[in-house]
Amino acid sequence: MPSTYIHPTFTTEAGTTLHDVPIAYRTWGRLNASGTNAVIVCHALTGDTNVDDWWGPLLGAGRALDPERDFILCANVPGSPYGSVSPVTPDPETGNPYGADFPALTPRDTVALHRHLLKHLGVQRVRYAIGGSMGGMHVLEWAFERTKAGDPLVKRIVPIAVGGRHTPWQIGWSEAQRQAIYADPKWNGGAYDPNDPPRSGLAAARTMAMVSYRSHASFQERFGRTRQSENGTTNPPFAVESYLRYQGDKLVDRFDANCYVHLTQQMDAHDVSRDRGAYPDALTRIEQPALVIGIDSDVLYPLAEQEELAAHLPNAELQVLSSPHGHDAFLIELEDLNAMITQWQDTHASALAR
Amino acid sequence: MPSTYIHPTFTTEAGTTLHDVPIAYRTWGRLNASGTNAVIVCHALTGDTNVDDWWGPLLGAGRALDPERDFILCANVPGSPYGSVSPVTPDPETGNPYGADFPALTPRDTVALHRHLLKHLGVQRVRYAIGGSMGGMHVLEWAFERTKAGDPLVKRIVPIAVGGRHTPWQIGWSEAQRQAIYADPKWNGGAYDPNDPPRSGLAAARTMAMVSYRSHASFQERFGRTRQSENGTTNPPFAVESYLRYQGDKLVDRFDANCYVHLTQQMDAHDVSRDRGAYPDALTRIEQPALVIGIDSDVLYPLAEQEELAAHLPNAELQVLSSPHGHDAFLIELEDLNAMITQWQDTHASALAR
Repeated sequence: MPSTYIHPTFTTEAGTTLHDVPIAYRTWGRLNASGTNAVIVCHALTGDTNVDDWWGPLLGAGRALDPERDFILCANVPGSPYGSVSPVTPDPETGNPYGADFPALTPRDTVALHRHLLKHLGVQRVRYAIGGSMGGMHVLEWAFERTKAGDPLVKRIVPIAVGGRHTPWQIGWSEAQRQAIYADPKWNGGAYDPNDPPRSGLAAARTMAMVSYRSHASFQERFGRTRQSENGTTNPPFAVESYLRYQGDKLVDRFDANCYVHLTQQMDAHDVSRDRGAYPDALTRIEQPALVIGIDSDVLYPLAEQEELAAHLPNAELQVLSSPHGHDAFLIELEDLNAMITQWQDTHASALAR
Repeated sequence: MPSTYIHPTFTTEAGTTLHDVPIAYRTWGRLNASGTNAVIVCHALTGDTNVDDWWGPLLGAGRALDPERDFILCANVPGSPYGSVSPVTPDPETGNPYGADFPALTPRDTVALHRHLLKHLGVQRVRYAIGGSMGGMHVLEWAFERTKAGDPLVKRIVPIAVGGRHTPWQIGWSEAQRQAIYADPKWNGGAYDPNDPPRSGLAAARTMAMVSYRSHASFQERFGRTRQSENGTTNPPFAVESYLRYQGDKLVDRFDANCYVHLTQQMDAHDVSRDRGAYPDALTRIEQPALVIGIDSDVLYPLAEQEELAAHLPNAELQVLSSPHGHDAFLIELEDLNAMITQWQDTHASALAR
């Protein structure tokens, strides 16, 4: 179970003020006396604070996330149903969940809110911030945060399978998924009965998302044209159909449609260059050493986006995770990912120890 | 307006018999006395018989489809709402549309049904069959058709942006779209009121399909992160969102949900190797000269599938249509496509004239 810090008041970029704002988080290891050994792990769209569940092999002594060395922190993104403020959180003014009234947030709002948690915990400096997909968006925004003295708060960054702004390709995928939710009349503009939510729409959205997270090669290898079962049915479903339906149904049991719509819109708002000048110039301002990791089979966030990112970040190294599994490879190829990160850490060991 | 031939009786591969079966078609040019100058054009999922609408630049004197030389024929695929038998056709036994009771068909059923049209029209031999996407599946099945004398009915084939079988990647995309339709309660298992169809579900499916038909680069070039309008709205939609919503709504006005589900399932059934031995062996039996055309930016039917096809077809030439537009390039890059085909025709001119 995550811990929860209740932040008294938070005003969004767009000017909405929330009160008694919960921020759910988990930590591993101990913060040192100077508060300078924090590592921030940023989770993906349907992820949560349980890094040990979804990145287990990266977590442990001698691993990328080493609790014996670092104070590892994963905070739940506002808008996600896993403990931080979101559409499923009761509005303290009414006692009812925010639901469709939950305000639009940007990745910068997430970082600003989480920064209050860092202050609460006594974190002074962050050794590095790491995350894939939506998590990578938050990593890039963390790079712009400064200490009171004007130094970068985060010393190094590891954005994975992401670009510096959500492109129309990704917005298109997001919108197609939202349309599937909107097509479910139970959606009702977000004002649905929590006991009778738009299950079918959310399941259909997830089905679509699961395709985007994988690849032609991974589906071919795993499913081919195999049909699910042959016991008497004339046209049993293809194995890939059964798999996708199962994935859709599974998400519905653990997620919320308003949260899904909100978070995909938060991702669509991702653009490090907003109010920071031209896109390349904004990236040039991220001077920290960066390990940019891309996946060669990623359909949703193609490798070209990480190549562009690495080309514009002044101190970036690009590493390519080779995998047939598409975007999801950052949640699958964990030994390779761990090796990539620890090797990069070793290269920068003296600097990271500073 | 297409012409319609009513075929008295047709029995599907799975054993269902239909009566008074309409086949809608259009033709350009004249059939020669020996009935040997036919060219078959096969349309895509939401396409129709109006080749002059969607492949205009390919049609005309000196063009790939030359009515002065050839008898060009495009027949509507059964299951499509554009005139051939489909879920929207009245069942002669009941007078009501087949609706959800319309039988499952395979690409081989389509070819078998259309072959009756060829006989009706007096076509003895086909100079070539050409089509992209779903049309390419039918082209590949035409290649297996024989005359009574045992010769190939179709002398040459031009399959575009397709493989020899629907892969789980494409089935996954299909199923995600069907799930969006199923999520609309108006779907009602296909037994919906024709005056109150599952519009939202079909629109969401189309939205998703439109993403799969394009590419990262084409969306980037066309839309970037532009928002639709700034007149007072705080968060106007991204241009790509407006575009996709428009495309979804537009299809609903001209298509039917049962037809959409049926045709995507007909495409999922595409497998030239079914009951014909191992996949490579089945392709080896297609001995006709083949021009296989792939698109370098195709996300849905990646170029690797056409490379595989061309590698296994004994007399194939592979041409790559270079375009940023993804799968839809075969409906966009029409001058390039026309040049590719006419050049191939010129190379084989003496043989085609036989």
